[in-house]
Amino acid sequence: MATKKTQYLNLNLLFVLIGTLFYAKPINSQNQDSVTIRKLYDYYLTQSKTYSNLEALCLKIGGRISGSQQAANAVVWAKRAMYAAGADTVFLQPCMVPHWVRGAKEECYFVTKSNQMMSLNCIALGSSVGTGEKGVKAKVIEVNNFEELEKLGEKTIKGNIVFYNVFFDQSKIRTGNAYGEAVKYRGKGASMAAKFGAIASVVRSMTSVADDEAHTGNMGYDTSISKTKIPAIAISYKGADLLHNALLSEKNIELFIQTNCQTLPDVLSYNVVGQITGKQKPNEYIITGGHLDSWDNGQGAHDDGSGVVQSIEILAAFKALGIQPKHSIRAVAFMNEENGLAGGMAYAQWAKDHKEKHIAALETDAGGYTPRGFGVDTAMGLYKQVLQWKPLFQAYFIDRIEQGGGGADISALEKQGVPCIGFEPDTQRYFDIHHTAADTFDKINKRELNLGAAAIGALLYLIDSHN
Amino acid sequence: MATKKTQYLNLNLLFVLIGTLFYAKPINSQNQDSVTIRKLYDYYLTQSKTYSNLEALCLKIGGRISGSQQAANAVVWAKRAMYAAGADTVFLQPCMVPHWVRGAKEECYFVTKSNQMMSLNCIALGSSVGTGEKGVKAKVIEVNNFEELEKLGEKTIKGNIVFYNVFFDQSKIRTGNAYGEAVKYRGKGASMAAKFGAIASVVRSMTSVADDEAHTGNMGYDTSISKTKIPAIAISYKGADLLHNALLSEKNIELFIQTNCQTLPDVLSYNVVGQITGKQKPNEYIITGGHLDSWDNGQGAHDDGSGVVQSIEILAAFKALGIQPKHSIRAVAFMNEENGLAGGMAYAQWAKDHKEKHIAALETDAGGYTPRGFGVDTAMGLYKQVLQWKPLFQAYFIDRIEQGGGGADISALEKQGVPCIGFEPDTQRYFDIHHTAADTFDKINKRELNLGAAAIGALLYLIDSHN
Repeated sequence: MATKKTQYLNLNLLFVLIGTLFYAKPINSQNQDSVTIRKLYDYYLTQSKTYSNLEALCLKIGGRISGSQQAANAVVWAKRAMYAAGADTVFLQPCMVPHWVRGAKEECYFVTKSNQMMSLNCIALGSSVGTGEKGVKAKVIEVNNFEELEKLGEKTIKGNIVFYNVFFDQSKIRTGNAYGEAVKYRGKGASMAAKFGAIASVVRSMTSVADDEAHTGNMGYDTSISKTKIPAIAISYKGADLLHNALLSEKNIELFIQTNCQTLPDVLSYNVVGQITGKQKPNEYIITGGHLDSWDNGQGAHDDGSGVVQSIEILAAFKALGIQPKHSIRAVAFMNEENGLAGGMAYAQWAKDHKEKHIAALETDAGGYTPRGFGVDTAMGLYKQVLQWKPLFQAYFIDRIEQGGGGADISALEKQGVPCIGFEPDTQRYFDIHHTAADTFDKINKRELNLGAAAIGALLYLIDSHN
Repeated sequence: MATKKTQYLNLNLLFVLIGTLFYAKPINSQNQDSVTIRKLYDYYLTQSKTYSNLEALCLKIGGRISGSQQAANAVVWAKRAMYAAGADTVFLQPCMVPHWVRGAKEECYFVTKSNQMMSLNCIALGSSVGTGEKGVKAKVIEVNNFEELEKLGEKTIKGNIVFYNVFFDQSKIRTGNAYGEAVKYRGKGASMAAKFGAIASVVRSMTSVADDEAHTGNMGYDTSISKTKIPAIAISYKGADLLHNALLSEKNIELFIQTNCQTLPDVLSYNVVGQITGKQKPNEYIITGGHLDSWDNGQGAHDDGSGVVQSIEILAAFKALGIQPKHSIRAVAFMNEENGLAGGMAYAQWAKDHKEKHIAALETDAGGYTPRGFGVDTAMGLYKQVLQWKPLFQAYFIDRIEQGGGGADISALEKQGVPCIGFEPDTQRYFDIHHTAADTFDKINKRELNLGAAAIGALLYLIDSHN
């Protein structure tokens, strides 16, 4: 576009008025809310440290898988960042986390009839056993789903390598739904393949985009399916295409895989919790959290450095604006979301042990993209309350309030009856870089990150002041 | 996030039902619409040529400023692409366009007291005169707005270079609103500076992001302000920071500027119009358009190759699904949006001359980002009609229906009383690369581009079938 300006009516005031009529809130209260939310946005968009905090986490610490030195460094960093943001208190919640290490070399290739070596970009899946230095080599059997695998059975699969050539369903509007369908092949594909005697398992990367990035992510060995642990890797989308196309013309392709990953003894780690203590109800809590651990291959920028710095920033925003919350507000940097949820469970156990009442728990773990709104728990009445504030959210484009929401880290709290909220940004690009070496700080847009942080700040402000 | 799935109720059906109750549409009609829109999305997300068309336009033709060989090539390309998409007919609408050329060298620097040469990334503004090979050199006077300029007056400005150090207001939620405020310094800054005897004009680039890209864009010489035409450039955000900071400690900085741009005689060019002829009302038109020209420095990927290929794809989508429209549907690739609007005016004149009745005109010129919805003209009743379909749009996240909308290319049609629509994607990142060398194909996300195209397809299908 050139210099044109499209004119819009300012619908904000109109909606505030409509909202007031419908929900019979005193107009002064809604006006006060409207003014405070605007101030919060001003703070977030012009003064916040969200972006520079994320830069430090990504570039100074980098990838920080549970149990690693980087994860330990991230705990120290988060504690400092929370104090710097103005937390009244910051404390650590201990938890034992798995310590899976990738090891040095990862390789996957096959040799064509014409003696050409075809190398595929690959990555070991988290929690997988490695092949060791010698690697494994066997005929590769491609399947499109578990049904095909079962049909082929032991006679075809035994001693071979299974290749799950499963694509994202691109017709889904939410990329998360496509991921949700495909990810079972990453999660239990190895155990299913091992059940029929396979010696390794390969998945097409979980991705929305046809590129050459290999996407890791956690897998698990389900001993109810098979007691044998076989190595599991992902190959890039383009690598999967290459293999699939080769198999069309040549059935007996042998795939070589080498990975050197292994699981070491569990390590003591921590959630980091920063708190502004409530003036009226200090023992009642409203929390926002993201996870501090990430995969080792990238910088954990969108997954989930974004959520961590967005959560931390609520402390700074409330301090900057002189907002003294009624309830205690916590920013939580959860440990071990990616491969175990030890942090999420430790937080819930701590809450139970300390008889902490949680008014609401929000998780931000869908990337630092432009916010759309929130998914809100319906069981405890919070959804209805949040829906009231839709008119206030309209001008900020965060008024998509959906039923049901939460996140992995707060799922244990949810089981205790805590009303949970999932922050919902636009996720069209999320799975392009999810769990890859490309999940780096340069993929972050400062405004989008801050708009997400502001959305969370606005919602938590409302929950605090209206409960 | 790891492997969690957030569950949402499928609100689509619910909203269809609510919509039906409220708007008293027969449920069969809404059901049929819902089914067709889903089919359109399936087509766009899995089969469309939108992305590959844009790749060809950006990488084979590249930047295509009006009057250039590339713009002429783009006309040929668009005609072929429209036929390939399945247009019943494609025709060209002639228009005379300006032929401004950048020339070879662009340079801007100053020398510090300590004899250090500080080079600033710069770019001549479209329609500007050049300095010629010798360049210009003069003391630089920084102002924050026109009021300051007027206050300084001729005694300070005369013989010097004016530097408009104007930032985007980052607190604005819509980046377009920040642009709308700042762009007047690009548009008429030179004439205002010339009024007080300045010999050149410099603006801080129109951008949301603090980087080193120089953003061009059109300017104009307003002879009612000054009859003198002085060279006008933009410097990058970081360049502007550098200059501003230097001026804090050293008042008499002399800036050297060299540009070699010039305006050649007007050139004959064309809009390209591809049409599927309506079955019931062939002489009534519903159009979607983007602009085929772009600035010369990038590839015109988001601005506005996206809009062109999204518009072309409606032809292919209707053909693929066997939709026979009642009205004639047109994809319009407008020429000369960036520096003259000759194409938009030619289209409107053609429509008038041929007594064409336009039911609606949509413009897509805000980038190939995730769609949010539409801004719709309120004067002619179209807004009310589109608002009815909000329930149908909900599941696709395109239900933000705002009052007022349109675009530069269709503004002449709007003056004739045609109901106009502006396609509204998320534009947080738009001005990061707007009018820069970085507006390239690699900045396009395939799903986002296709979701935008699908949104336009869905809306135009509804307008066609309900009018």
